[in-house]
Amino acid sequence: MKWVKVLGGVVGVAALLGLGIILGHFAIPKGADPLAPSVSQDLDLEILETVMGQLDASRIRENLRELSREPHLASSPRDEALVQLLLQRWRDPESGLDSAGTSTYEVLLSFPSQEQPNRVAVVAPTGDILFSCRQSEENVTEEQAGPDVVSPYAAYAPSGTPQGLLVYANWGMEEDFEELQTQGIELKGTIALTRYGGIGRGAKAVNAAKYQVAGVLVYTDPADINDGHSLPNETFPHSWYLPPSGVERGSYYEYFGDPLTPYLPANPSSFRLDPTTASGFPPIPTQPIGFEDAKVLLCNLQGTSAPAAWQGALGCDYKLGPGFQPDGAFASSQVNLSIHNSLELRNSSNVLGIIRGAVEPDRYVMYGNHRDSWVHGAVDPSSGTAVLLEISRVLGTLLKKGTWRPRRSVVFASWGAEEFGLIGSTEFTEEFFSKLQERTVAYINVDISVFANATLRVQGTPPVQSVVFSAAKQIPAPDPSRLSIYDNWIRYFNRSSPVYGLVPRLGSLGAGSDYAPFIHFLGISSMDIAYTYDQSKTSARIYPTYHTAFDTFSYVDKFVDPGFGSHLAVAQTAGNVLLRLSDSLFLPLNVSDYSETLRSFLQAAQQDLGALLEQHSISLGPLVTAVEKFEEASIALGQNISALQKANPNPLQVRMLNDQLMLLERTFLNPRAFPEELYYSHVLWAPRTGSVATFPGLANACSRAMNTSLGSAAWAEVQRQLSIVVAALEGAAATLRPVDDL
Amino acid sequence: MKWVKVLGGVVGVAALLGLGIILGHFAIPKGADPLAPSVSQDLDLEILETVMGQLDASRIRENLRELSREPHLASSPRDEALVQLLLQRWRDPESGLDSAGTSTYEVLLSFPSQEQPNRVAVVAPTGDILFSCRQSEENVTEEQAGPDVVSPYAAYAPSGTPQGLLVYANWGMEEDFEELQTQGIELKGTIALTRYGGIGRGAKAVNAAKYQVAGVLVYTDPADINDGHSLPNETFPHSWYLPPSGVERGSYYEYFGDPLTPYLPANPSSFRLDPTTASGFPPIPTQPIGFEDAKVLLCNLQGTSAPAAWQGALGCDYKLGPGFQPDGAFASSQVNLSIHNSLELRNSSNVLGIIRGAVEPDRYVMYGNHRDSWVHGAVDPSSGTAVLLEISRVLGTLLKKGTWRPRRSVVFASWGAEEFGLIGSTEFTEEFFSKLQERTVAYINVDISVFANATLRVQGTPPVQSVVFSAAKQIPAPDPSRLSIYDNWIRYFNRSSPVYGLVPRLGSLGAGSDYAPFIHFLGISSMDIAYTYDQSKTSARIYPTYHTAFDTFSYVDKFVDPGFGSHLAVAQTAGNVLLRLSDSLFLPLNVSDYSETLRSFLQAAQQDLGALLEQHSISLGPLVTAVEKFEEASIALGQNISALQKANPNPLQVRMLNDQLMLLERTFLNPRAFPEELYYSHVLWAPRTGSVATFPGLANACSRAMNTSLGSAAWAEVQRQLSIVVAALEGAAATLRPVDDL
Repeated sequence: MKWVKVLGGVVGVAALLGLGIILGHFAIPKGADPLAPSVSQDLDLEILETVMGQLDASRIRENLRELSREPHLASSPRDEALVQLLLQRWRDPESGLDSAGTSTYEVLLSFPSQEQPNRVAVVAPTGDILFSCRQSEENVTEEQAGPDVVSPYAAYAPSGTPQGLLVYANWGMEEDFEELQTQGIELKGTIALTRYGGIGRGAKAVNAAKYQVAGVLVYTDPADINDGHSLPNETFPHSWYLPPSGVERGSYYEYFGDPLTPYLPANPSSFRLDPTTASGFPPIPTQPIGFEDAKVLLCNLQGTSAPAAWQGALGCDYKLGPGFQPDGAFASSQVNLSIHNSLELRNSSNVLGIIRGAVEPDRYVMYGNHRDSWVHGAVDPSSGTAVLLEISRVLGTLLKKGTWRPRRSVVFASWGAEEFGLIGSTEFTEEFFSKLQERTVAYINVDISVFANATLRVQGTPPVQSVVFSAAKQIPAPDPSRLSIYDNWIRYFNRSSPVYGLVPRLGSLGAGSDYAPFIHFLGISSMDIAYTYDQSKTSARIYPTYHTAFDTFSYVDKFVDPGFGSHLAVAQTAGNVLLRLSDSLFLPLNVSDYSETLRSFLQAAQQDLGALLEQHSISLGPLVTAVEKFEEASIALGQNISALQKANPNPLQVRMLNDQLMLLERTFLNPRAFPEELYYSHVLWAPRTGSVATFPGLANACSRAMNTSLGSAAWAEVQRQLSIVVAALEGAAATLRPVDDL
Repeated sequence: MKWVKVLGGVVGVAALLGLGIILGHFAIPKGADPLAPSVSQDLDLEILETVMGQLDASRIRENLRELSREPHLASSPRDEALVQLLLQRWRDPESGLDSAGTSTYEVLLSFPSQEQPNRVAVVAPTGDILFSCRQSEENVTEEQAGPDVVSPYAAYAPSGTPQGLLVYANWGMEEDFEELQTQGIELKGTIALTRYGGIGRGAKAVNAAKYQVAGVLVYTDPADINDGHSLPNETFPHSWYLPPSGVERGSYYEYFGDPLTPYLPANPSSFRLDPTTASGFPPIPTQPIGFEDAKVLLCNLQGTSAPAAWQGALGCDYKLGPGFQPDGAFASSQVNLSIHNSLELRNSSNVLGIIRGAVEPDRYVMYGNHRDSWVHGAVDPSSGTAVLLEISRVLGTLLKKGTWRPRRSVVFASWGAEEFGLIGSTEFTEEFFSKLQERTVAYINVDISVFANATLRVQGTPPVQSVVFSAAKQIPAPDPSRLSIYDNWIRYFNRSSPVYGLVPRLGSLGAGSDYAPFIHFLGISSMDIAYTYDQSKTSARIYPTYHTAFDTFSYVDKFVDPGFGSHLAVAQTAGNVLLRLSDSLFLPLNVSDYSETLRSFLQAAQQDLGALLEQHSISLGPLVTAVEKFEEASIALGQNISALQKANPNPLQVRMLNDQLMLLERTFLNPRAFPEELYYSHVLWAPRTGSVATFPGLANACSRAMNTSLGSAAWAEVQRQLSIVVAALEGAAATLRPVDDL
């Protein structure tokens, strides 16, 4: 008996010691001291629920009211005041972050003269001014008053006083001017009236100048923005439609970043290009006008009728010109532009705030939006900033209470001067290129958070699809359907995935907001999240008061999102994605989802370019092989992840795997692929011309080579671009394979 | 009593459990199972001693005998046979690595015609050939025999049969041709005889062509290679000096990497430039000759005497020409070159072998050398490969026995086609750009391992200084002095460091061997290790039989390193460095040593360019600030490392710190800094022209701007280059600061 007892005691001691060793090795010290870093800290679903529950629509509304109270054009005093507001919030002792600060750049902006307002006038042969366009929008609500509303202008358009016969040039695309020429219209010295849409703002003036047009006007047609409505009583404040006097402002600079310091942070001492030799500015004077004024000009034009596709909703037959009807009030008159914009070096600040990661503080999950607006900017961008502040408040409160600290660092950013060309974010990526590229897990952008209340809309690269889906499935949609955001979303935007079946469709990232330098220049997996409209119910190009003086708090409160349910939905979705990225032990970036993109790009190349390439002895075989290698490597990696998740991995094994996931997007960068395109280095998402939805380098090179002869330099470039993408895919696959693979 | 006992029991149980937890959390399972990965595995000094002790000079000698038995020109059958030899060694079940394989590229090489041997002849006005240079070297030892010795030629020089009067053009530098012109010599249509040295091979022909010279001859002057000795009985096999018939072969391509596939791996399907439009090839026919033949030509020239600095040791007064002495045998004769080189696409292989890291297999310590030689290549490169094979044998044996596995992965490489322009290594870095850039800790290159027996010679970037010093202090020098390699080294190459006092001087990395793509293109901390001569005892430009048919096993065995003690010293040094890099818990890369470089570059800029820059309103202030920021950040990081080493860090804390150290070198890359320089992206080590030892972009831009006017584009480029280096240093400092710093 004694023996047995003693033995039992020894066994018991050994077992206890053993249990302790096991506990010590693997236990997550949950509850004990939540701030003590445990290397295996993982996403806490309770915290996630808490955050979802604490996000508050009424606080978002109050944020928006404050943010949009005054116009806050980039570098204006009110923009600076909002810098202080953000700093104050992020330094709040009860709901702030670990630290916050600003980074300020000296950047080239463009403003209209206050002394000599820009003027668009109809001038009789006598010199008499028969008509002038409005120089500011009508005040239809009290909140619009105040001296800080910048007059409508085309930022970066040069000064000048061109005068000539008016022509109507549709979108101002090259083919539009060609059509006018075909119609026998002499374009030299004319003023071209164009409508917003079709192509970028700056491109209209660039194209016009090629045809020796002397000046450009741009207006918003009610057909394109107001579903045809144009009467005052049909528009804001009676509906969400754009009032007749509304004018879309905007940057007409063709690239992004500070125009004088490409690839360099715009510090005071930085090398600057001579503005007179910098490229990307509109070459001729340009001015935007409202449709109220555009109607006066357009409905008085003489000449043949414009093609059906060029017609709009101004209530008259659009003629091409040149010049006005001989029997009308403007007979023999010309249009005179008197543009007095000036380029100015101004200080513009970003505000940055950080929550230090408990376990991997050198991994950054970034979340940003710009702060500057054209006027009050309630929708653009304050709807996003209002959400940003609410998310940071909820997380900051948990942080300050000591109940939560993320695994990875969370970095919040409020960018300056986005409206002039993503300037604050671009300068930031230039200044911290290495640090960001080495360490950033993903960039979440929420610019305009709510365009309308119908559905979620996400643009992003394939690796973010899975984490967005996870978040969207967890959150109820704001509409009364009681569907999840995911189930609601799939009703509006969907696609059939060969892997998953019917899923919501993510859009791809262009350069419409501050994600552009992150994805195109740094190769960081990025996304842009918003709520938007039902495209079957409106054909508006964008929300109607975009970049006008009518984009105000009451506009949002009454028409865009009464009750702020969609704002809350975006806050919950973006906050959920943020937490999953910052807190999950295994990064929720599903890199194998890139295979679908590659496969579809490949199929488009095979179907639409294959025969043509064959004629030029260019084989798609190596591209097929490269896509297959990527697919194989990503499938095998997925299996390794599953195995590792079950195998109680050590923290370095997880880190190594996460590094593969985080860095995949970087492998698609090639800074030498498109030397003529500023910042664009991502061989899958660089701008693509032409209709074939394939690899952009290949698509663009084919477009250019199409009409050249066998053996031309343009066909050599096709082969070069093909090799560039093959090398990128092979290199990407190599990073996904086991790390000891030779 | 009972109460107390029960209480005691509970306390005991709790204590045991607690002890278990502590053990489980922190214990390193040492001894138990040496192959089970422990996340805190650190450098084992016993293993290090074992490796040092097992490296064997006689085995290195046997490796060398085998490797240099036959000529093994890139892509030749013997080169391929050596690929198999390496694979066999690295796959050996008792002393091999975890795995080994090859990667093969289709690259553009250049060979002389076997049917029409290149010929250099003196041709009388009658057309009679009065003299012809040798077409191959004299066989002075038996080991030289055999059909596989490639005739001397200038690789990539074009074919052609220029004929003209001979001139002597010293090094073939631009100023040399200018001097000839100043002397009234008409250069158009001449053949220029130049000597090796001063500038790169290819540059001689490029410069000559600018002066309309028709063909170039290049010879090795005994003054430059043989300490003046030129008689057969003073040279090999009687001494290590170059025999009169010896000819230095070499690549005359101006850049590196496969000439037809810049930035792309030279896979069969890759886009290739048209060889007729590719740049970097010598523009005119060029041929190297021995000094035996050069003497016949040079000592018969007419004209004025060459300047004193142009004179050599051929035993006559060097005249400039043009043409031969009117009273000599070659009166009125011309020199005719008949060059028949051809460009050929050939397969060239790299051999790779890996030892998988036990803890961080995704961190690579790379060690490489090229395999191809011009002829037998006993010194260049087989002396390095002999060492490589001995290191891999010793490590492989420990691995296969189960006594050791490194913390990080060790990757061995045998590069192909280095002699033609670092082709194998460059294609490898192109193919695996992302993977290597993300994961490589350092690259160790041992090309020629032993030039001579006097001292260690290391070239490298500052972060490798400390680890090389640690190794060199631990190993005895091969000479009888009984000093350590370090103490011996400091006698030959030293400098006064503001931080450390007198230390051995590391050289900087140019593009002389396969480290070039690693440092310049990928930004990986690199080094090149060798034993070399006492420069006070010889003025030889390089070891005398370099790139000739006399670089044979017996040459090494008798003259370069009898007993192979210097080979062993290099093996021990490189092996020691390798183990420290692969096994140390904290990476032994001392990034703060970069501060000394930055400070010295800054001081040179201030002293030698400051006044000039000030005249052009360019301030060095931002550069001063950037250097200071780097210094501060690196000092603070050093303190953090010390604190962490004492604080029982968790594995992720160590990894995060090591990532900062590993990636620092990457932060100095800017692929847009020097667009005209293929592959050179490192803003500190790109090629520098001019005499000011400062940041290369700044130095080069200043050289170009020097003679231009105020406000020229060249002065704008100076400002741009200054901003590029400031941005790089600020970015580098940002990566060294605490990772949650905003």
